[in-house]
Amino acid sequence: MRKLINAPADVVSDALRGLAAAHPSLRVDPGAGTVVRADAPRRGKVALVSGGGSGHEPLHAGFVGYGMLDGACPGEVFTSPVPDQVIAATMAVSGGAGVLYVVKNYTGDVLNFRMAAELAEDEDIEAVSVVVDDDVAVEDSTFTAGRRGTGATLFVEKIAGALAEEGAPLDAVAAVAREVNERSRSFGVALSPVTVPAAGAPTFQLGDDEMELGIGIHGEPGRERVKIATAAEIVDAALTAIDADMPLAGSELLVLVNGMGGTPLIEQYVAYAAAAEWLDGHGATVARPLVGPFVTSLEMAGCMVSVCRLTPELTRLWDAPVETPALRWGR
Amino acid sequence: MRKLINAPADVVSDALRGLAAAHPSLRVDPGAGTVVRADAPRRGKVALVSGGGSGHEPLHAGFVGYGMLDGACPGEVFTSPVPDQVIAATMAVSGGAGVLYVVKNYTGDVLNFRMAAELAEDEDIEAVSVVVDDDVAVEDSTFTAGRRGTGATLFVEKIAGALAEEGAPLDAVAAVAREVNERSRSFGVALSPVTVPAAGAPTFQLGDDEMELGIGIHGEPGRERVKIATAAEIVDAALTAIDADMPLAGSELLVLVNGMGGTPLIEQYVAYAAAAEWLDGHGATVARPLVGPFVTSLEMAGCMVSVCRLTPELTRLWDAPVETPALRWGR
Repeated sequence: MRKLINAPADVVSDALRGLAAAHPSLRVDPGAGTVVRADAPRRGKVALVSGGGSGHEPLHAGFVGYGMLDGACPGEVFTSPVPDQVIAATMAVSGGAGVLYVVKNYTGDVLNFRMAAELAEDEDIEAVSVVVDDDVAVEDSTFTAGRRGTGATLFVEKIAGALAEEGAPLDAVAAVAREVNERSRSFGVALSPVTVPAAGAPTFQLGDDEMELGIGIHGEPGRERVKIATAAEIVDAALTAIDADMPLAGSELLVLVNGMGGTPLIEQYVAYAAAAEWLDGHGATVARPLVGPFVTSLEMAGCMVSVCRLTPELTRLWDAPVETPALRWGR
Repeated sequence: MRKLINAPADVVSDALRGLAAAHPSLRVDPGAGTVVRADAPRRGKVALVSGGGSGHEPLHAGFVGYGMLDGACPGEVFTSPVPDQVIAATMAVSGGAGVLYVVKNYTGDVLNFRMAAELAEDEDIEAVSVVVDDDVAVEDSTFTAGRRGTGATLFVEKIAGALAEEGAPLDAVAAVAREVNERSRSFGVALSPVTVPAAGAPTFQLGDDEMELGIGIHGEPGRERVKIATAAEIVDAALTAIDADMPLAGSELLVLVNGMGGTPLIEQYVAYAAAAEWLDGHGATVARPLVGPFVTSLEMAGCMVSVCRLTPELTRLWDAPVETPALRWGR
């Protein structure tokens, strides 16, 4: 394997040691498998906890900090965190105003966060889950009943995190998280397969001239396998699929062109140019653009396009100060 | 090619269109091949201009903004910018206090920036070049007389940019840029080759179980080709080479563990953990860590370790506010 690791079994714990060493703003507990804000718990503030399989960095631990998440629970690579991790993070961040779980819609994640919420209830902590299911590519998938949760998770965590930072109550924070999810859609394209370290072989095979349209963030199959196309054609396929599901004309959009982990930034900007031009040609306005590898799938080449139909209030919350390892502005 | 592009000849211009669309804080002139701060020129401020071949994003255009560069000149992929680009950027950012060119030590870059400085003189603009040559891997290389300029370019641009933002004169800004370069060293390792779009084939071949120690950022040969090792062994090779050239014990360090473009962030944190432990075990202190893909080589897998021996003044300037697409804090 062409991987910068020590041993497949140690990837997550080694990366957590690196995260802890690099970011004094985080408190990392490798034993518990949790990453929380160093200033947690914040009294009287709704706390946000997310998590999921590792391999999608900076999601979620890179989004822990002021104005976004209070805690994250990284599972093994492409493997849901266990309820014990979630409850440990919950206990570490709970400030008495309740906890919002931001859960990507994968069967294991949904189940384990649900079990954690029950454990939290035993501790007199109110925990509410919001499930993110933004990926329009497939209705059900390898790991999912219903649509997968992908790029919009970042939108939900940022916007709900901003509202929580302002002191809003749990029901309002949960409501805005649901609203963002409902107004968001994503579609991804893989130009290469991906190898889970513990497996040692690619999760799927792609011919040298093939790509997979509608890929998930774990290498799950998408809609179809086709010949590698141009960036403009790839972005057209993604935005056409999104637009068919949620018409974009007339909307003010938050747009993420997201590198999948193995695609260099110069290519992400090539794709963003195509996305901006497509949207302009279809009557939509990009109010807030974001380009970069934020929701990745190990070393997969390719990109995902995610959009959120903004409202003035969602725009205000998106613009609010944030200070995390991977997203930072305006404070 | 598994690349997210439209046509090999259009990669740089397409990416510049994307950069312009994504970042209103930048003024991109695709015809001139320049990227400058939207608020340029700043009267009375020393302006910083850098540039070099494309394919190393976010270097340099992603570092244009408050507290860092005033302008960047992206050449074609792995190709020096021409003097016309450099002088166009110079004219666009000159605020009457002189211009500092931050030049990576590649023969074409050094020559073209020198020619631009002569053109600037004709326009009554004082332009001074500082050449960055931090890479300890090889003494001369394919594109270089002397050492290559790699990861420390980021340090030079950030620290000199901070001093310029404070209103320091050109000689002081140039002096601190030279000081940072002299106190910095880098060493890179490639786990995969890299394909220049216009060439369509990898710049070199690596066996499935091989890596190249001491690689440059264009896939130039390094010191030796060996079997792929663990992250700890790779980091040990890099830091041992650096330490042999510039002893690190007793130093307060700025440390960059830099992803080369195709290595996911989780692996960069695995490498950073190893670097932090190596330095701790060798009597050096990491005062300022940075982890991420900042000085890349297209889709190359691997990492580079860069260090700078800080002084209190260099630390102060590193910590000063910066607001660019790729580096942002504290304002």
